[in-house]
Amino acid sequence: MRPVISSEGARDVLVVGGGIIGLVTAWRAAGRGLSVALADPSPGGGAARVAAGMLAPVTELHYGEQRLLALQLASARRWAAFAAELEEAAGTGVGYRTCGTLAVALDADDRAQLKELHAFQRELGLSSEWLAGRECRRLEPMLAPGVRGGLRVDGDHQADPRLLARALVTACERAGVVFHRVRARELTVVRGRAAGVVLEDGTAVAAGRTVLAAGSWSGGLAGVPPELMPPVRPVKGQVVRLRMPDGGHGPFLSRTVRAVVRGSQVYLVPRESGELVIGATSEERGWDTTVTAGGVYELLRDAHELLPGLTELALVETSAGLRPVSPDNAPLLGATALDGLLLATGHGRNGVLLTPVTGDALADALTSGELPPEARPFTAGRFTGRELTTV
Amino acid sequence: MRPVISSEGARDVLVVGGGIIGLVTAWRAAGRGLSVALADPSPGGGAARVAAGMLAPVTELHYGEQRLLALQLASARRWAAFAAELEEAAGTGVGYRTCGTLAVALDADDRAQLKELHAFQRELGLSSEWLAGRECRRLEPMLAPGVRGGLRVDGDHQADPRLLARALVTACERAGVVFHRVRARELTVVRGRAAGVVLEDGTAVAAGRTVLAAGSWSGGLAGVPPELMPPVRPVKGQVVRLRMPDGGHGPFLSRTVRAVVRGSQVYLVPRESGELVIGATSEERGWDTTVTAGGVYELLRDAHELLPGLTELALVETSAGLRPVSPDNAPLLGATALDGLLLATGHGRNGVLLTPVTGDALADALTSGELPPEARPFTAGRFTGRELTTV
Repeated sequence: MRPVISSEGARDVLVVGGGIIGLVTAWRAAGRGLSVALADPSPGGGAARVAAGMLAPVTELHYGEQRLLALQLASARRWAAFAAELEEAAGTGVGYRTCGTLAVALDADDRAQLKELHAFQRELGLSSEWLAGRECRRLEPMLAPGVRGGLRVDGDHQADPRLLARALVTACERAGVVFHRVRARELTVVRGRAAGVVLEDGTAVAAGRTVLAAGSWSGGLAGVPPELMPPVRPVKGQVVRLRMPDGGHGPFLSRTVRAVVRGSQVYLVPRESGELVIGATSEERGWDTTVTAGGVYELLRDAHELLPGLTELALVETSAGLRPVSPDNAPLLGATALDGLLLATGHGRNGVLLTPVTGDALADALTSGELPPEARPFTAGRFTGRELTTV
Repeated sequence: MRPVISSEGARDVLVVGGGIIGLVTAWRAAGRGLSVALADPSPGGGAARVAAGMLAPVTELHYGEQRLLALQLASARRWAAFAAELEEAAGTGVGYRTCGTLAVALDADDRAQLKELHAFQRELGLSSEWLAGRECRRLEPMLAPGVRGGLRVDGDHQADPRLLARALVTACERAGVVFHRVRARELTVVRGRAAGVVLEDGTAVAAGRTVLAAGSWSGGLAGVPPELMPPVRPVKGQVVRLRMPDGGHGPFLSRTVRAVVRGSQVYLVPRESGELVIGATSEERGWDTTVTAGGVYELLRDAHELLPGLTELALVETSAGLRPVSPDNAPLLGATALDGLLLATGHGRNGVLLTPVTGDALADALTSGELPPEARPFTAGRFTGRELTTV
């Protein structure tokens, strides 16, 4: 590991991007004794503002993504302790709930697909239980009478991404992270080594290592050599938020329910606060974050097929955000071919789930120069053919 | 006509309620030389905040409501001059557009119903033109291919109710109307005569005549003798607002389009500003103004059947309001059995359309003591069996 360049006033680490991934990186780095700065015009914003916060590696299992599954499971296992530690550090909650998830089938095709998923889960040693339609409705009485069966996964949990982001901002502040509430304009490269950034207001922030954690915008920082630009694209997601009666979640819906309706994933995530999150569209639309008539219509239509009774619920918010998605749907973590530049981006739909493991992986990379074993398949260089696991 | 009681500081007229009906009453009364005060916590609010602003007596024709039709037509004929006069007085626009209305049929039943409506319109001497489906789509190319025919009514226009309310507030201010931005608590009755109100902050506002124009809340003012309480109930309407491309209305939709979809009225009103208003649900829910998942879903679903291309439009607002509806769906205008108390309420879905004629009718009632002929079927006393047309 090379020594930190400590020019006058330079920090050990500068994190570019104050979404949950940038924040957890900053918090964990500060926890290892490094001096840390973070640049973002509004820390705690980003894709987490819109995310549903499912911690659901088992119900979201995809064929061909078993390597990612290992990382997801490693993170899921850390979530309870992570939530406790963060809540202690910040003094505020993160809405972690172990209420479980129920993936249901609305027709015979869905049922066949869910049965296949169940077989695949068992093959991988994952814990899930097949339920008949009436057993699903016994668990969740608001479910549509047409539900044909489902998979109960008690190990798939949830957190509230807005609370998570807020707690991470506070924890960073308390850990001494210095916030520059300005957008980063350009990476500074000195003698072939990343040395910080220049902000849009002209301020130069010097740092021994720079972590690019700017979500969908990670591919757009000037000064990053073109061949090292992270291949991250924005995938738009629209989300609708309803309010359940009496602020309680129990009587209406007690756990996350999801299904595939007309080929689209739809999920309903009931929060402790009484909020019911319905997500999410998946649209390749560049930087567009418009909430559209069609997006809201399809979410309400599909959700209505799962839970007809939700028509009575108050609609309180519609929103859209951008998932930072990489070519293999997995994150880009750790060192790049440019000394002093690391990545923590490309988390796609898994940002909230992967927050604990990402914080730990980047803290390891920044202190020992090595990614931990579970993170090594996700090196930043894997798309350029120049894999590096040391800084 | 009895003389105005002019106690110290008393106004000739106090209007209770600052929606468009209260405002137009105050403006017109001030224009006749009366001194006018108006009490409302937020003048310019009320049902007009949510209304679509269709001026459409011909396409909204209902069997058995021919008396109301005469009043509607009288008001529709005044709208162009009213808009010009108000815009001149206020210095701001009201979004009056003579773009016409197209009522379309989506299936054979709708088509038969529209054909009957067309026959009824012709019987009453109203101007409308039957168009085949392809002629409808030639006029409005975004219409669904399944449109089976329609009624073109060029005389059914629109205004923007929010602009209308704003202009009326300014016109009232410029005409010297005194605003009390506090809710009225109780009618003051002195020697068997209405003499003003006491506001919620305890202020007594004295007036020779008091006009109750509080929309859905008109039945709830303390101090009004129970047998004279206007029988007005709130009927909830939910509305969705989209934004058409490029801020222009021409390319996407050039005129109001409406239809009956699955038994529900749905209409799409394109504004000059690029706003596209989709309305409206009609729900008996008391004072509830919650925007619900089901209300928004049904509006988007039905609108989508008419104009499939609207899925791409930005959804910018969802809202709900309360129509003040009387037992015969017509307004309550003019004197009551209590000397000095007049009504201007119960306009239901016709508030914007009836604004000009209501202002004129109340100004006549307040100055000459007589309602004009077109307003006489709508006396405030018709539900109590004690009809009075003089003050």
